Amino acid sequence: MTITITAFERSPDGGKGLARDTRVRWALEEVGQPYEVRLVSFKAMKEPAHLALHPFGQIPTYQEGETGLFETGAIVFHIAERHAGLLPGNANARARAITWMFAALSTVEPPILELGTARILEGDKPWTAQRLPLVQDRIRSRLGQLSRRLGDADWLDGAFSAGDLMMVSVLLRLRASGMLDDYPNLAAYVARGEARPAYKRAFDAQWAVNKPPAG
Amino acid sequence: MTITITAFERSPDGGKGLARDTRVRWALEEVGQPYEVRLVSFKAMKEPAHLALHPFGQIPTYQEGETGLFETGAIVFHIAERHAGLLPGNANARARAITWMFAALSTVEPPILELGTARILEGDKPWTAQRLPLVQDRIRSRLGQLSRRLGDADWLDGAFSAGDLMMVSVLLRLRASGMLDDYPNLAAYVARGEARPAYKRAFDAQWAVNKPPAG
Repeated sequence: MTITITAFERSPDGGKGLARDTRVRWALEEVGQPYEVRLVSFKAMKEPAHLALHPFGQIPTYQEGETGLFETGAIVFHIAERHAGLLPGNANARARAITWMFAALSTVEPPILELGTARILEGDKPWTAQRLPLVQDRIRSRLGQLSRRLGDADWLDGAFSAGDLMMVSVLLRLRASGMLDDYPNLAAYVARGEARPAYKRAFDAQWAVNKPPAG
Repeated sequence: MTITITAFERSPDGGKGLARDTRVRWALEEVGQPYEVRLVSFKAMKEPAHLALHPFGQIPTYQEGETGLFETGAIVFHIAERHAGLLPGNANARARAITWMFAALSTVEPPILELGTARILEGDKPWTAQRLPLVQDRIRSRLGQLSRRLGDADWLDGAFSAGDLMMVSVLLRLRASGMLDDYPNLAAYVARGEARPAYKRAFDAQWAVNKPPAG
Protein backbone atom coordinates (compact mmCIF):
# COMPACT_ATOMS: atom_id res chain seq x y z
CA MET A 1 0.00 0.00 0.00
CA THR A 2 1.43 3.38 -0.92
CA ILE A 3 2.36 5.73 1.90
CA THR A 4 1.61 9.37 1.09
CA ILE A 5 2.66 12.22 3.33
CA THR A 6 1.99 15.93 2.97
CA ALA A 7 4.61 18.68 3.08
CA PHE A 8 4.76 22.44 2.50
CA GLU A 9 4.63 23.47 -1.14
CA ARG A 10 7.40 25.82 -0.03
CA SER A 11 8.80 25.49 3.48
CA PRO A 12 9.09 28.73 5.48
CA ASP A 13 12.65 27.71 6.44
CA GLY A 14 13.82 27.78 2.81
CA GLY A 15 15.01 24.17 2.87
CA LYS A 16 16.88 23.97 6.19
CA GLY A 17 15.01 20.73 6.90
CA LEU A 18 13.21 22.12 9.95
CA ALA A 19 9.67 21.61 8.63
CA ARG A 20 8.15 18.60 10.31
CA ASP A 21 7.82 16.51 7.17
CA THR A 22 11.59 15.99 7.44
CA ARG A 23 11.06 14.04 10.67
CA VAL A 24 8.59 11.72 8.96
CA ARG A 25 10.78 11.38 5.85
CA TRP A 26 13.71 10.49 8.13
CA ALA A 27 11.68 7.81 9.93
CA LEU A 28 10.55 6.30 6.64
CA GLU A 29 14.14 6.30 5.35
CA GLU A 30 15.42 4.62 8.54
CA VAL A 31 12.97 1.74 8.11
CA GLY A 32 13.39 1.58 4.33
CA GLN A 33 9.81 2.38 3.35
CA PRO A 34 9.20 4.24 0.08
CA TYR A 35 6.71 7.10 0.18
CA GLU A 36 5.08 9.71 -1.95
CA VAL A 37 4.69 13.36 -1.09
CA ARG A 38 1.77 15.62 -1.79
CA LEU A 39 2.69 19.29 -1.51
CA VAL A 40 0.18 21.65 0.07
CA SER A 41 0.10 25.45 -0.16
CA PHE A 42 -0.46 27.65 2.90
CA LYS A 43 -3.84 28.54 1.47
CA ALA A 44 -4.89 24.92 0.90
CA MET A 45 -3.76 23.96 4.43
CA LYS A 46 -6.58 26.05 5.89
CA GLU A 47 -9.28 24.73 3.53
CA PRO A 48 -11.84 22.04 4.42
CA ALA A 49 -10.22 19.25 2.37
CA HIS A 50 -6.97 19.53 4.32
CA LEU A 51 -8.65 20.26 7.66
CA ALA A 52 -10.47 16.94 7.26
CA LEU A 53 -7.03 15.27 7.31
CA HIS A 54 -5.45 17.62 9.85
CA PRO A 55 -7.77 19.51 12.21
CA PHE A 56 -5.03 22.03 13.06
CA GLY A 57 -4.31 22.85 9.42
CA GLN A 58 -0.68 21.78 9.44
CA ILE A 59 1.65 19.33 7.74
CA PRO A 60 2.63 16.51 7.74
CA THR A 61 -0.24 14.09 7.38
CA TYR A 62 0.12 10.37 6.65
CA GLN A 63 -2.11 8.24 4.47
CA GLU A 64 -1.74 4.52 3.83
CA GLY A 65 -4.87 2.79 2.59
CA GLU A 66 -7.49 3.18 5.32
CA THR A 67 -5.00 4.68 7.78
CA GLY A 68 -5.07 8.46 7.97
CA LEU A 69 -2.99 10.19 10.64
CA PHE A 70 -1.74 13.65 11.55
CA GLU A 71 0.70 14.90 14.22
CA THR A 72 4.38 14.21 13.62
CA GLY A 73 4.99 12.32 16.85
CA ALA A 74 2.09 9.97 16.18
CA ILE A 75 3.18 9.38 12.58
CA VAL A 76 6.77 8.62 13.54
CA PHE A 77 5.55 6.30 16.28
CA HIS A 78 3.20 4.55 13.85
CA ILE A 79 6.08 3.95 11.44
CA ALA A 80 8.37 2.83 14.27
CA GLU A 81 5.79 0.40 15.60
CA ARG A 82 5.19 -1.29 12.23
CA HIS A 83 8.70 -1.55 10.80
CA ALA A 84 11.99 -2.66 12.34
CA GLY A 85 14.72 -0.11 12.90
CA LEU A 86 13.39 2.58 15.23
CA LEU A 87 12.34 0.77 18.41
CA PRO A 88 14.23 -1.90 20.35
CA GLY A 89 12.68 -5.35 20.75
CA ASN A 90 13.13 -5.52 24.53
CA ALA A 91 9.95 -4.23 26.21
CA ASN A 92 11.66 -1.96 28.73
CA ALA A 93 14.08 -0.52 26.20
CA ARG A 94 11.15 0.08 23.84
CA ALA A 95 9.21 1.93 26.56
CA ARG A 96 12.27 4.09 27.26
CA ALA A 97 12.70 4.93 23.57
CA ILE A 98 9.05 6.02 23.48
CA THR A 99 9.71 8.06 26.63
CA TRP A 100 12.41 10.01 24.79
CA MET A 101 10.02 10.69 21.91
CA PHE A 102 7.58 12.29 24.32
CA ALA A 103 10.38 14.07 26.19
CA ALA A 104 11.62 15.61 22.94
CA LEU A 105 8.16 16.84 21.98
CA SER A 106 6.66 17.87 25.30
CA THR A 107 9.61 18.85 27.49
CA VAL A 108 12.46 19.97 25.24
CA GLU A 109 10.63 21.42 22.23
CA PRO A 110 8.13 23.81 23.90
CA PRO A 111 10.74 26.35 25.12
CA ILE A 112 12.46 26.08 21.71
CA LEU A 113 9.16 26.85 20.00
CA GLU A 114 8.81 29.86 22.31
CA LEU A 115 12.09 31.19 20.96
CA GLY A 116 10.78 30.90 17.40
CA THR A 117 7.55 32.61 18.41
CA ALA A 118 9.46 35.41 20.14
CA ARG A 119 11.69 35.99 17.13
CA ILE A 120 9.16 35.59 14.34
CA LEU A 121 5.67 36.42 15.63
CA GLU A 122 6.86 38.96 18.22
CA GLY A 123 10.05 40.08 16.49
CA ASP A 124 8.68 43.61 15.97
CA LYS A 125 7.46 44.08 19.54
CA PRO A 126 9.16 46.55 21.88
CA TRP A 127 9.69 43.92 24.58
CA THR A 128 11.36 41.26 22.50
CA ALA A 129 14.99 42.35 22.94
CA GLN A 130 14.59 42.38 26.73
CA ARG A 131 12.57 39.19 26.82
CA LEU A 132 14.76 36.95 24.64
CA PRO A 133 17.36 36.25 27.37
CA LEU A 134 14.62 34.85 29.61
CA VAL A 135 13.41 32.54 26.85
CA GLN A 136 16.98 31.47 26.14
CA ASP A 137 17.57 30.73 29.83
CA ARG A 138 14.60 28.38 29.87
CA ILE A 139 16.05 26.55 26.88
CA ARG A 140 19.50 26.39 28.50
CA SER A 141 17.98 24.83 31.58
CA ARG A 142 16.67 21.95 29.44
CA LEU A 143 19.85 21.67 27.38
CA GLY A 144 21.96 21.44 30.53
CA GLN A 145 19.80 18.62 31.88
CA LEU A 146 19.83 16.79 28.57
CA SER A 147 23.58 17.23 28.20
CA ARG A 148 24.19 15.77 31.66
CA ARG A 149 21.99 12.77 30.90
CA LEU A 150 23.58 12.08 27.50
CA GLY A 151 27.11 12.32 28.90
CA ASP A 152 29.53 10.73 26.45
CA ALA A 153 27.06 8.25 25.02
CA ASP A 154 26.32 8.18 21.31
CA TRP A 155 22.55 8.01 21.75
CA LEU A 156 20.11 8.62 24.60
CA ASP A 157 19.53 4.98 25.54
CA GLY A 158 21.61 2.32 23.81
CA ALA A 159 21.11 2.05 20.06
CA PHE A 160 19.69 4.83 17.88
CA SER A 161 15.89 4.94 18.22
CA ALA A 162 12.81 6.97 17.36
CA GLY A 163 13.57 8.87 20.59
CA ASP A 164 16.89 10.04 19.15
CA LEU A 165 15.29 10.83 15.79
CA MET A 166 12.85 13.14 17.53
CA MET A 167 15.36 14.69 19.94
CA VAL A 168 17.90 15.41 17.20
CA SER A 169 15.11 16.93 15.08
CA VAL A 170 14.04 19.18 17.95
CA LEU A 171 17.62 20.28 18.71
CA LEU A 172 18.26 21.05 15.04
CA ARG A 173 15.86 23.98 15.45
CA LEU A 174 18.53 25.60 17.65
CA ARG A 175 21.36 25.27 15.15
CA ALA A 176 21.05 28.82 13.79
CA SER A 177 20.92 30.33 17.29
CA GLY A 178 24.39 29.02 18.17
CA MET A 179 23.02 27.85 21.53
CA LEU A 180 24.09 24.25 20.96
CA ASP A 181 27.74 25.33 20.79
CA ASP A 182 27.78 25.66 24.59
CA TYR A 183 27.01 21.94 24.89
CA PRO A 184 29.65 20.11 22.85
CA ASN A 185 28.19 16.67 23.56
CA LEU A 186 24.77 17.79 22.32
CA ALA A 187 26.29 19.41 19.23
CA ALA A 188 28.12 16.14 18.50
CA TYR A 189 24.92 14.17 19.12
CA VAL A 190 23.04 16.29 16.59
CA ALA A 191 25.91 15.89 14.12
CA ARG A 192 25.76 12.10 14.53
CA GLY A 193 22.07 12.24 13.69
CA GLU A 194 22.67 14.36 10.60
CA ALA A 195 25.42 11.99 9.46
CA ARG A 196 23.05 9.04 9.24
CA PRO A 197 22.42 8.09 5.61
CA ALA A 198 18.66 8.03 6.26
CA TYR A 199 18.74 11.61 7.55
CA LYS A 200 20.74 12.71 4.54
CA ARG A 201 18.24 11.17 2.15
CA ALA A 202 15.37 12.83 4.02
CA PHE A 203 17.13 16.18 4.02
CA ASP A 204 17.97 15.95 0.32
CA ALA A 205 14.39 15.05 -0.55
CA GLN A 206 12.99 18.13 1.21
CA TRP A 207 15.80 20.27 -0.23
CA ALA A 208 14.79 19.24 -3.74
CA VAL A 209 11.38 20.76 -3.01
CA ASN A 210 12.48 23.83 -1.09
CA LYS A 211 15.80 24.97 -2.51
CA PRO A 212 15.77 28.56 -3.74
CA PRO A 213 15.18 28.92 -7.47
CA ALA A 214 18.42 29.00 -9.48
CA GLY A 215 19.72 32.40 -10.64
CA MET B 1 4.25 -6.08 40.70
CA THR B 2 3.60 -2.79 42.51
CA ILE B 3 3.29 0.37 40.44
CA THR B 4 4.84 3.38 42.17
CA ILE B 5 4.53 6.90 40.79
CA THR B 6 6.01 10.12 42.10
CA ALA B 7 4.09 13.33 42.79
CA PHE B 8 4.79 16.72 44.34
CA GLU B 9 5.04 16.69 48.13
CA ARG B 10 2.90 19.82 47.76
CA SER B 11 1.58 20.76 44.34
CA PRO B 12 2.10 24.39 43.28
CA ASP B 13 -1.57 24.50 42.22
CA GLY B 14 -2.79 23.86 45.77
CA GLY B 15 -4.79 20.77 44.78
CA LYS B 16 -6.54 21.89 41.58
CA GLY B 17 -5.44 18.63 39.98
CA LEU B 18 -3.27 20.32 37.35
CA ALA B 19 0.00 18.68 38.38
CA ARG B 20 0.86 15.97 35.91
CA ASP B 21 0.61 13.10 38.38
CA THR B 22 -3.19 13.54 38.09
CA ARG B 23 -3.00 12.45 34.43
CA VAL B 24 -1.19 9.26 35.42
CA ARG B 25 -3.49 8.63 38.38
CA TRP B 26 -6.47 9.06 36.03
CA ALA B 27 -5.05 6.56 33.52
CA LEU B 28 -4.41 4.01 36.28
CA GLU B 29 -7.93 4.49 37.62
CA GLU B 30 -9.45 4.05 34.13
CA VAL B 31 -7.74 0.68 33.71
CA GLY B 32 -8.29 -0.38 37.32
CA GLN B 33 -4.66 -0.69 38.39
CA PRO B 34 -3.75 0.05 42.00
CA TYR B 35 -0.69 2.19 42.58
CA GLU B 36 1.44 3.69 45.28
CA VAL B 37 2.67 7.26 45.41
CA ARG B 38 6.02 8.51 46.60
CA LEU B 39 5.96 12.24 47.34
CA VAL B 40 9.00 14.30 46.35
CA SER B 41 9.91 17.78 47.59
CA PHE B 42 11.06 20.53 45.19
CA LYS B 43 14.51 20.21 46.70
CA ALA B 44 14.68 16.44 46.25
CA MET B 45 13.50 16.72 42.63
CA LYS B 46 16.75 18.43 41.69
CA GLU B 47 19.00 15.96 43.52
CA PRO B 48 20.91 13.09 41.90
CA ALA B 49 18.64 10.29 43.16
CA HIS B 50 15.59 11.82 41.47
CA LEU B 51 17.50 13.00 38.39
CA ALA B 52 18.51 9.38 37.83
CA LEU B 53 14.79 8.60 37.45
CA HIS B 54 13.85 11.84 35.67
CA PRO B 55 16.62 13.71 33.83
CA PHE B 56 14.55 16.92 33.76
CA GLY B 57 13.92 16.87 37.52
CA GLN B 58 10.14 16.70 37.32
CA ILE B 59 7.27 14.51 38.37
CA PRO B 60 5.67 12.08 37.67
CA THR B 61 7.89 9.06 37.29
CA TYR B 62 6.69 5.46 37.03
CA GLN B 63 8.31 2.37 38.49
CA GLU B 64 7.08 -1.20 38.13
CA GLY B 65 9.69 -3.86 38.77
CA GLU B 66 12.42 -3.37 36.16
CA THR B 67 10.42 -0.75 34.27
CA GLY B 68 11.34 2.82 35.08
CA LEU B 69 9.79 5.64 33.03
CA PHE B 70 9.40 9.40 33.10
CA GLU B 71 7.39 11.84 30.93
CA THR B 72 3.63 11.88 31.45
CA GLY B 73 2.71 11.09 27.85
CA ALA B 74 4.98 8.06 27.79
CA ILE B 75 3.67 6.80 31.13
CA VAL B 76 0.02 7.16 30.12
CA PHE B 77 0.77 5.43 26.83
CA HIS B 78 2.58 2.62 28.63
CA ILE B 79 -0.43 2.08 30.89
CA ALA B 80 -2.84 2.29 27.92
CA GLU B 81 -0.82 -0.22 25.93
CA ARG B 82 -0.73 -2.83 28.69
CA HIS B 83 -4.24 -2.65 30.10
CA ALA B 84 -7.66 -2.55 28.45
CA GLY B 85 -9.72 0.61 28.65
CA LEU B 86 -7.76 3.45 27.09
CA LEU B 87 -7.02 2.35 23.51
CA PRO B 88 -9.42 0.77 21.00
CA GLY B 89 -8.67 -2.69 19.65
CA ASN B 90 -9.04 -1.75 15.98
CA ALA B 91 -5.60 -0.82 14.62
CA ASN B 92 -6.68 2.35 12.83
CA ALA B 93 -8.78 3.59 15.72
CA ARG B 94 -5.86 2.86 18.06
CA ALA B 95 -3.48 4.87 15.87
CA ARG B 96 -5.93 7.78 15.87
CA ALA B 97 -6.28 7.69 19.67
CA ILE B 98 -2.47 7.85 19.92
CA THR B 99 -2.56 10.75 17.45
CA TRP B 100 -4.81 12.70 19.81
CA MET B 101 -2.42 12.05 22.71
CA PHE B 102 0.40 13.61 20.73
CA ALA B 103 -1.86 16.42 19.48
CA ALA B 104 -2.81 17.29 23.06
CA LEU B 105 0.82 17.40 24.20
CA SER B 106 2.62 18.87 21.23
CA THR B 107 0.02 21.06 19.47
CA VAL B 108 -2.56 22.18 22.03
CA GLU B 109 -0.54 22.32 25.25
CA PRO B 110 2.50 24.42 24.20
CA PRO B 111 0.57 27.72 23.77
CA ILE B 112 -1.26 26.97 27.04
CA LEU B 113 2.07 26.48 28.80
CA GLU B 114 3.17 29.83 27.35
CA LEU B 115 0.25 31.47 29.11
CA GLY B 116 1.35 29.96 32.41
CA THR B 117 4.91 31.09 31.79
CA ALA B 118 3.75 34.62 30.94
CA ARG B 119 1.62 34.87 34.06
CA ILE B 120 3.91 33.18 36.56
CA LEU B 121 7.53 33.49 35.40
CA GLU B 122 7.04 36.84 33.63
CA GLY B 123 4.14 38.16 35.70
CA ASP B 124 6.26 41.00 37.08
CA LYS B 125 7.67 42.13 33.71
CA PRO B 126 6.64 45.45 32.18
CA TRP B 127 5.61 43.82 28.89
CA THR B 128 3.32 41.14 30.24
CA ALA B 129 0.04 43.10 30.21
CA GLN B 130 0.55 44.05 26.56
CA ARG B 131 1.80 40.63 25.57
CA LEU B 132 -0.90 38.46 27.15
CA PRO B 133 -3.51 39.10 24.43
CA LEU B 134 -1.09 37.76 21.80
CA VAL B 135 -0.53 34.59 23.81
CA GLN B 136 -4.28 34.21 24.33
CA ASP B 137 -4.91 34.64 20.59
CA ARG B 138 -2.56 31.76 19.84
CA ILE B 139 -4.47 29.58 22.28
CA ARG B 140 -7.81 30.65 20.78
CA SER B 141 -6.61 29.65 17.36
CA ARG B 142 -6.06 26.08 18.62
CA LEU B 143 -9.28 26.01 20.63
CA GLY B 144 -11.30 27.10 17.60
CA GLN B 145 -9.80 24.32 15.48
CA LEU B 146 -10.35 21.74 18.19
CA SER B 147 -13.91 22.91 18.77
CA ARG B 148 -14.72 22.60 15.07
CA ARG B 149 -13.29 19.10 14.95
CA LEU B 150 -15.10 17.92 18.08
CA GLY B 151 -18.45 19.32 16.92
CA ASP B 152 -21.23 17.75 18.94
CA ALA B 153 -19.44 14.46 19.58
CA ASP B 154 -18.85 13.26 23.12
CA TRP B 155 -15.21 12.35 22.53
CA LEU B 156 -12.61 13.10 19.86
CA ASP B 157 -12.84 9.82 17.98
CA GLY B 158 -15.52 7.35 19.00
CA ALA B 159 -15.23 5.99 22.54
CA PHE B 160 -13.26 7.69 25.32
CA SER B 161 -9.54 7.00 24.91
CA ALA B 162 -6.11 7.98 26.19
CA GLY B 163 -6.32 10.79 23.60
CA ASP B 164 -9.32 12.27 25.40
CA LEU B 165 -7.70 11.75 28.79
CA MET B 166 -4.75 13.82 27.65
CA MET B 167 -6.75 16.48 25.83
CA VAL B 168 -9.14 17.03 28.74
CA SER B 169 -6.15 17.24 31.10
CA VAL B 170 -4.50 19.86 28.88
CA LEU B 171 -7.70 21.92 28.55
CA LEU B 172 -8.27 21.82 32.31
CA ARG B 173 -5.25 24.13 32.61
CA LEU B 174 -7.40 26.83 31.00
CA ARG B 175 -10.31 26.51 33.43
CA ALA B 176 -9.23 29.40 35.66
CA SER B 177 -8.68 31.72 32.66
CA GLY B 178 -12.31 31.51 31.58
CA MET B 179 -11.15 30.99 27.98
CA LEU B 180 -13.02 27.70 27.63
CA ASP B 181 -16.33 29.51 28.17
CA ASP B 182 -16.18 30.82 24.60
CA TYR B 183 -16.27 27.24 23.29
CA PRO B 184 -19.31 25.60 24.89
CA ASN B 185 -18.66 22.23 23.25
CA LEU B 186 -15.11 22.16 24.64
CA ALA B 187 -16.32 23.22 28.09
CA ALA B 188 -18.87 20.38 27.98
CA TYR B 189 -16.19 17.97 26.76
CA VAL B 190 -13.96 18.85 29.71
CA ALA B 191 -16.93 18.49 32.07
CA ARG B 192 -17.62 15.01 30.66
CA GLY B 193 -14.02 14.07 31.40
CA GLU B 194 -14.23 15.38 34.94
CA ALA B 195 -17.49 13.49 35.50
CA ARG B 196 -15.86 10.13 34.88
CA PRO B 197 -15.57 8.13 38.11
CA ALA B 198 -11.92 7.37 37.34
CA TYR B 199 -11.14 11.10 37.05
CA LYS B 200 -12.92 11.81 40.31
CA ARG B 201 -10.92 9.14 42.11
CA ALA B 202 -7.69 10.54 40.66
CA PHE B 203 -8.64 14.08 41.62
CA ASP B 204 -9.63 13.08 45.14
CA ALA B 205 -6.37 11.19 45.63
CA GLN B 206 -4.26 14.22 44.71
CA TRP B 207 -6.55 16.50 46.76
CA ALA B 208 -5.91 14.37 49.83
CA VAL B 209 -2.21 15.20 49.43
CA ASN B 210 -2.53 18.84 48.42
CA LYS B 211 -5.54 20.30 50.19
CA PRO B 212 -4.75 23.32 52.32
CA PRO B 213 -4.20 22.54 56.00
CA ALA B 214 -7.40 22.83 58.06
CA GLY B 215 -7.93 25.94 60.14
